[in-house]
Amino acid sequence: MNTFGQLFRVTTFGESHGPAIGCVIDGCPPGIAIAPEEFAHDLSRRATGKTRHTSARHEADEVEILSGVYQGFTTGTPIALLIRNTDQRSKDYANIAQQFRPGHADYTYWQKYGIRDPRGGGRSSARETTMRVASGVIAKKWLGERGVQVRGHLAQIGDVVPVAHDWSVVEDNPFFWPDAAQVTELEVYMDALRKSGDSVGAKIVVEADGVPPGWGEPIYGKLDGELAAAMMSINAVKGVEIGDGFASVAQKGTQHRDAIALDGFASNHAGGILGGISTGQTVRVAVAFKPTSSLRLPVASVDTDGNAIEVVTTGRHDPCVGIRATPICEAMLALVLIDQALRHRAQCGDVGPVQPRIV
Amino acid sequence: MNTFGQLFRVTTFGESHGPAIGCVIDGCPPGIAIAPEEFAHDLSRRATGKTRHTSARHEADEVEILSGVYQGFTTGTPIALLIRNTDQRSKDYANIAQQFRPGHADYTYWQKYGIRDPRGGGRSSARETTMRVASGVIAKKWLGERGVQVRGHLAQIGDVVPVAHDWSVVEDNPFFWPDAAQVTELEVYMDALRKSGDSVGAKIVVEADGVPPGWGEPIYGKLDGELAAAMMSINAVKGVEIGDGFASVAQKGTQHRDAIALDGFASNHAGGILGGISTGQTVRVAVAFKPTSSLRLPVASVDTDGNAIEVVTTGRHDPCVGIRATPICEAMLALVLIDQALRHRAQCGDVGPVQPRIV
Amino acid sequence: MNTFGQLFRVTTFGESHGPAIGCVIDGCPPGIAIAPEEFAHDLSRRATGKTRHTSARHEADEVEILSGVYQGFTTGTPIALLIRNTDQRSKDYANIAQQFRPGHADYTYWQKYGIRDPRGGGRSSARETTMRVASGVIAKKWLGERGVQVRGHLAQIGDVVPVAHDWSVVEDNPFFWPDAAQVTELEVYMDALRKSGDSVGAKIVVEADGVPPGWGEPIYGKLDGELAAAMMSINAVKGVEIGDGFASVAQKGTQHRDAIALDGFASNHAGGILGGISTGQTVRVAVAFKPTSSLRLPVASVDTDGNAIEVVTTGRHDPCVGIRATPICEAMLALVLIDQALRHRAQCGDVGPVQPRIV
Amino acid sequence: MNTFGQLFRVTTFGESHGPAIGCVIDGCPPGIAIAPEEFAHDLSRRATGKTRHTSARHEADEVEILSGVYQGFTTGTPIALLIRNTDQRSKDYANIAQQFRPGHADYTYWQKYGIRDPRGGGRSSARETTMRVASGVIAKKWLGERGVQVRGHLAQIGDVVPVAHDWSVVEDNPFFWPDAAQVTELEVYMDALRKSGDSVGAKIVVEADGVPPGWGEPIYGKLDGELAAAMMSINAVKGVEIGDGFASVAQKGTQHRDAIALDGFASNHAGGILGGISTGQTVRVAVAFKPTSSLRLPVASVDTDGNAIEVVTTGRHDPCVGIRATPICEAMLALVLIDQALRHRAQCGDVGPVQPRIV
Repeated sequence: MNTFGQLFRVTTFGESHGPAIGCVIDGCPPGIAIAPEEFAHDLSRRATGKTRHTSARHEADEVEILSGVYQGFTTGTPIALLIRNTDQRSKDYANIAQQFRPGHADYTYWQKYGIRDPRGGGRSSARETTMRVASGVIAKKWLGERGVQVRGHLAQIGDVVPVAHDWSVVEDNPFFWPDAAQVTELEVYMDALRKSGDSVGAKIVVEADGVPPGWGEPIYGKLDGELAAAMMSINAVKGVEIGDGFASVAQKGTQHRDAIALDGFASNHAGGILGGISTGQTVRVAVAFKPTSSLRLPVASVDTDGNAIEVVTTGRHDPCVGIRATPICEAMLALVLIDQALRHRAQCGDVGPVQPRIV
Repeated sequence: MNTFGQLFRVTTFGESHGPAIGCVIDGCPPGIAIAPEEFAHDLSRRATGKTRHTSARHEADEVEILSGVYQGFTTGTPIALLIRNTDQRSKDYANIAQQFRPGHADYTYWQKYGIRDPRGGGRSSARETTMRVASGVIAKKWLGERGVQVRGHLAQIGDVVPVAHDWSVVEDNPFFWPDAAQVTELEVYMDALRKSGDSVGAKIVVEADGVPPGWGEPIYGKLDGELAAAMMSINAVKGVEIGDGFASVAQKGTQHRDAIALDGFASNHAGGILGGISTGQTVRVAVAFKPTSSLRLPVASVDTDGNAIEVVTTGRHDPCVGIRATPICEAMLALVLIDQALRHRAQCGDVGPVQPRIV
Repeated sequence: MNTFGQLFRVTTFGESHGPAIGCVIDGCPPGIAIAPEEFAHDLSRRATGKTRHTSARHEADEVEILSGVYQGFTTGTPIALLIRNTDQRSKDYANIAQQFRPGHADYTYWQKYGIRDPRGGGRSSARETTMRVASGVIAKKWLGERGVQVRGHLAQIGDVVPVAHDWSVVEDNPFFWPDAAQVTELEVYMDALRKSGDSVGAKIVVEADGVPPGWGEPIYGKLDGELAAAMMSINAVKGVEIGDGFASVAQKGTQHRDAIALDGFASNHAGGILGGISTGQTVRVAVAFKPTSSLRLPVASVDTDGNAIEVVTTGRHDPCVGIRATPICEAMLALVLIDQALRHRAQCGDVGPVQPRIV
Repeated sequence: MNTFGQLFRVTTFGESHGPAIGCVIDGCPPGIAIAPEEFAHDLSRRATGKTRHTSARHEADEVEILSGVYQGFTTGTPIALLIRNTDQRSKDYANIAQQFRPGHADYTYWQKYGIRDPRGGGRSSARETTMRVASGVIAKKWLGERGVQVRGHLAQIGDVVPVAHDWSVVEDNPFFWPDAAQVTELEVYMDALRKSGDSVGAKIVVEADGVPPGWGEPIYGKLDGELAAAMMSINAVKGVEIGDGFASVAQKGTQHRDAIALDGFASNHAGGILGGISTGQTVRVAVAFKPTSSLRLPVASVDTDGNAIEVVTTGRHDPCVGIRATPICEAMLALVLIDQALRHRAQCGDVGPVQPRIV
C-alpha cells in the first residue's frame, strides 16, 4: 500500500539513504502544463538545512521527470518523478542497525518483515514526503485552474499558539507562523530546545478555499474520511480534526450546526464538509504532530539480540518535525481534493451544482 | 465508495426509510462459526428506543443471512446480511423534502447528485451503521479466536469526563461510562438536555488488546491511517486521535517516546502504533462526535426553491449521538484489524513475529 | 473478489439453492429512470425452463429494488437488487455432497476453502449470472441514452455455424441464431443431443455500436483486457477473442491492419479497439463456451473420502449452456463499457473527441 | 490503470523514446534474494536486435534497483526498477507526429487524451513490456521456491504449427519453437517475409506446472479471468484461450470433462482451472498475436489535420511481434500466479490443501 488515491494515484518508492526516491502518478488528467522547475518552490519549503531550526541534512531535491510529460504538458500517461539522494551519511546509522530506537518504526518494521533497512529509518523516513509534495504540485496546479486554493500554517508549537492570524506573513518566517509578532519568541524557544537536546510537537492547520459543493463520496470515501487517512499517513501525526474537531464534544447542537442564509452559511463549525461531502465553504483540517523521537538525550531500549541498551541518536534531525510539515499537509489536502474531484466527475459528470448555490 | 476494507470488504446499502438495509461481506475467511442470533448482542447495544436517552425509533434489527454461510460456518463466499426496516414514519419527513437541514447532509447530497431521498436522511442516516456493527461481529469473532479483544467506552459527554476508569461497569449503564459513580449525574444532565431541546457532543475511546506486532501497511495503508479513515467515516465524527493525539503537540520528545525494556514498553503514548504498524501494545483510538443537528429548536436555512426558511425537526432523534456509537467504533476498529491481519498474512505469511518479542 | 468494475461496481452474492441471490451496484450515476419491471426482459431471455432446450428449473426471477432508487430514479447511492430463490430442489444434490463432479468447481472449492455448499453448485452455479444481467439492464439504459447499443447472437453450436447473418431474427428463436433457415436443423440437433444425455459447446458474438473513440485505459485497464476478464469470468467460458482473434495468427499485416479513409475505417479486423482504446467502430467480442459437464452419462471420479466413484447427474441442466448465455455476454459488455465510460469521464472530462472524428 | 495485480502490484511507467522506463513493485514478500544481474536472462530473451528476425533496435536493458532491496534481499517495501533508454532514434518518428498509423494506437490515444507522444508509439510501445519481464523475474523466483515452474513456446507462426513438441529445444532457436526440425523452414519463411516488407501473426502457449489446487478467486477474480486480462493487456494480443479454448465449442460434454481417478485427473481439457480455481494440474494458456502493423508497405490513412495520406513506416520493427513475446506471456502468467497465491494466503491461510489431494 504505497499508493495514495483512487483515480489520481500516487505510488511512492525509495528509502532515506537508498540511491533515490521517486513516485509514479497515474490517472493524471492530460493537458496540464508542468515544468521541472515548478516543483522547486514547494520542495524548498519542505527542505531541511535551510534554517538552524531544521535538520542539517542538505538535499538538492532536483526532480527529474521520467515520463508522462511531452512538450511541457501531461499526456494522461503515468508521470514518474525521480530525486537522487545525494547527502546520505549512512555511517551515522551503522551503530543503530541492531538497535530499536524508541518512538521509531525500527521495531515494528523488524517484526513485520523480519528485515529492515536501518539507514536513516529506511522506508519509514520522512524523506518519502518529498514525493507527496512533488505530486501535490501537480494537484495544486489543476485545482488552481478551477479556483481551488490550498494553504496552511502552524497553529501550535509546544504550548505556544498564534495570537493574531495573518495569512500574508506565513511564508515570511521559518515557522509558517501566522503572527509575525511571535516569531522572535519562537526562535528563542526553538534555540533553547535545540540546545537542550529535546524536541516538541506541533499543530498544523490546512485549508482549501473555492472547493465547490459536491466533492466527497459517501459512505466510506467521505471527503473528511479520506482527509483523515491522508493526514494520519504523514510521519509523526497523532491526530486529525475537521472543522471544530474535538471542541465539538463540549458544544451544544444549537452552537455547532451552521445556519444557512440566502447568501451562504452563517458559520463554519463543520469545516466545509457535511455528510462527507463539501459544502462550498472553506475546508479546514487540523493535524497534530508528535515531538521528534530522535534525540541526543539517551533512552532505554533493546537490541535485535535481546539485550538492554541505551539509545543516543547522533544523526541530523529536526527538533520539531511539524515545522517543515506545512507543505506536506497542503500536498495531502490537494491530493485528496483532486482525487475526489475526478471521482465526482466520473459519477456525476461536470455539470455545475444544482441551484440554489449557497456560499 | 460504499465498500470498506481491502481484503475483508464490507459493502453496505440501504436508506433510513427504504425497504431494507444490508451489506455484503466479501473476502471473509472460511470456517468461522456464525449464527443469526450472534448479531443481536452488538446490534442491541447500538439500537435506539432502549432508554429515554436515545431516539424513540424502535427497529427490530433482525438479521437475515442470505448467503455465504453453510451449516453454520462461513464458506469463503460473500456473506449477505439483510435487515428489513419496520418502523419508518416517513410522513415525519414529508415537510422537509424541500428543506436543507443545517448540520445535515441534505444540502450536500442535493448539490452532489441533484436528487436525494429525504426520508430520515436517506442514505446519510446513521441507520447505515447497523451494518458496520453486524459485520463487526464476524470480525470480532475471528479476532477473538486469535486473542485480540476489542472494546470501548465513552470518555466525555459535553464537559463531563470520567473520574474513575473501570471496564467492568461500562456495559451496565446506558452511557457506556467507565465510572459508575457518575451515572446519576449524567442522567440528570441528559434529562435536562432533552427537555431543553438541545443536544451535545461526546468522545469515545476504543481499544484493542492482543494485537500482535506487525499489523499495518506503510505508507498509505498505515494502521493509524486506516483507523482515522474508519472512524471519520462514522456519522457526526469530527476528530480522531491515536494514543496521546493532540496532547502530543505540547509534549517533549523525552516525554512522548516510549522507552523499551526487556519485558516490554515502559509506556504507551504511541497508542500501540509506530510507523503505521502495531507494536504489540494496546491500540488506542479516541473519536470526537459533534452534537446532533436535528433539534426541536428552530434554525435559519433555505429551501430547494431558494427561499429563506426556519427548520424545526420533529422526527425522533438522539440528544447525544455519541452515546450509541461505542459499538460502532468498536466495529470499525475490528474491521480495520481483520483487514490488516489478512493483508499482513498475504505479504508476510503467518510466521510468528521475529524475536525478541517485546511486550 | 465478488465485485466487478472500478467505478460502476457490481458486487454479487448468493448461492444456487440459498434463500436468495442479489447484488449491490455502487457508483451508478444519479438520475437514471429505472423500474422493477425493466429487469424482466433480459432476465427472461436468460431464464431456464422456457423452451425444452434449456434446464427445466423454473425461477420467477422477480427483482426487488432494496435501495438506491427514489421515485423511479437512481440517486447515486448503492442500488441493491434481490431475487428470492423459489425452485430449489436441494434433495437433487444430497447424494453429491461428498462427490467431486468432473468438469465442475466442486473439487477446487473444496481444496480452496475446505468447505463448500454442494446444493446446485452453490456459489459456482450460473445462477449468479442473473445479477450480471440485472445490473447490465441499468448499464444498457445509461449507454443507450448515449447512443451505445449492445447486442449479441450465437455464432456456433457444436459444428454448426450460421450461414446467413440477420440481426432481426436473433430474438425470434430459442437459439439467438442469426439465420432463421437453420433453426429447424438446430432443434433437431438439440433434441437428439438431449436424448443422448450428452452436451455440446457454443460460441457467442457480442457487439457494441456507437461507442465513441477514447474509451479504455492503457496499460492494464485496456478495453479489450477488461472485456477478456469479464467474459472469462462467466461460467463455462474457455476463450475470448477481440475482432479477428485467433484468425489474426495466420494473417499478414497488410491484411489485418485497418486502413483509414476520410469517411472512416475501411475494415474492422481490430474489433473496434486499438491500443486498448475504442476506435469508434463496432466493438466485437467472441466467446467460447465449453459443453455442460453435468450429464446423465456416468463418469469416473473420487469422493471426499478418497474413494473411486461413478458420477451421474440427475439435476436439471442445460444440454448447451451457451444458448442462454447471450444476454449474459451482452450484460458483461455493457458493464465494461459503462465502467470505462465513467473512467474516461473522470480523467479526460466530458469534452467530445478531438477532430478529426473518423467513422 | 498502469498497475497490474491486487496484492503483488506492478506499476509501470515510461515511453518508448522518453528518458527511461521503469516500474514499482508493491506488496512483494520480504526476504526474496534478488540481484540486478538476475533480470538479464529474461530481458535478453525478450530483447530486440539479437537475431535478424527481430527489430534492429538495440537496448542495453540494464536494470537499476532503486529501492526495496537491502543487502540482496527484498525488504517488503516497494521495489523500483529503472532502465534508461539509450537507442532512441526519435527522428525516425518526426514525420509521423501528425499521422495516424493504421493498426496502431495513434488515433485512439489522440482521441482519448487530445495529446500524444508520437516517438516510437510513446506509451503504447511494446517497450513497456520490459518491465513486465523484469517484475516477472521476481515473481518467478518466489514461485520457483514453491515448486511452481512457468514456461512457454511459440505454437504457431502464420500457418506453420509445430509437428513435434520438445521443451528442451525451445530456448535453442530464435523462435521459441518446440520442434527443432522446423527451425530452418521458419528461418526461410521469416527471411522471405522480411524481404516482402510484410508481417505475420503468431500464437504462444504458456504453462505453469506445480500450481497447487486452490489458487484463484471466484467470481470476478477467477484465475482464468485474470489470465485473460493479463494476456489481452499485452500489445498486439487479440485472443486468449484456457485449456481447449475455442476447440471446446465443437466438443461434447463427455469428451471435454476431465474424469478423476485416485491418482489424478485423466486428462486436462480444462487447462488446470475449474470454477476459476486451480485444480493442481498444469495451467495452460494460449495467446493470439496479430501481425505487426508497422510495415514498409504503404497504407491509406488520415492525418491530424484531416487530410488523406499514405503511411509508410521507416522505423525498426519486428516482422512477427509474437516471436519475442514468449517471455512476456511467461511473466504475465507468473504475475497472475503470485498475486493469486498471496490472495489465497490472505483469505485461507497457508494451510495445505484439504485431502484427498488429487494429482
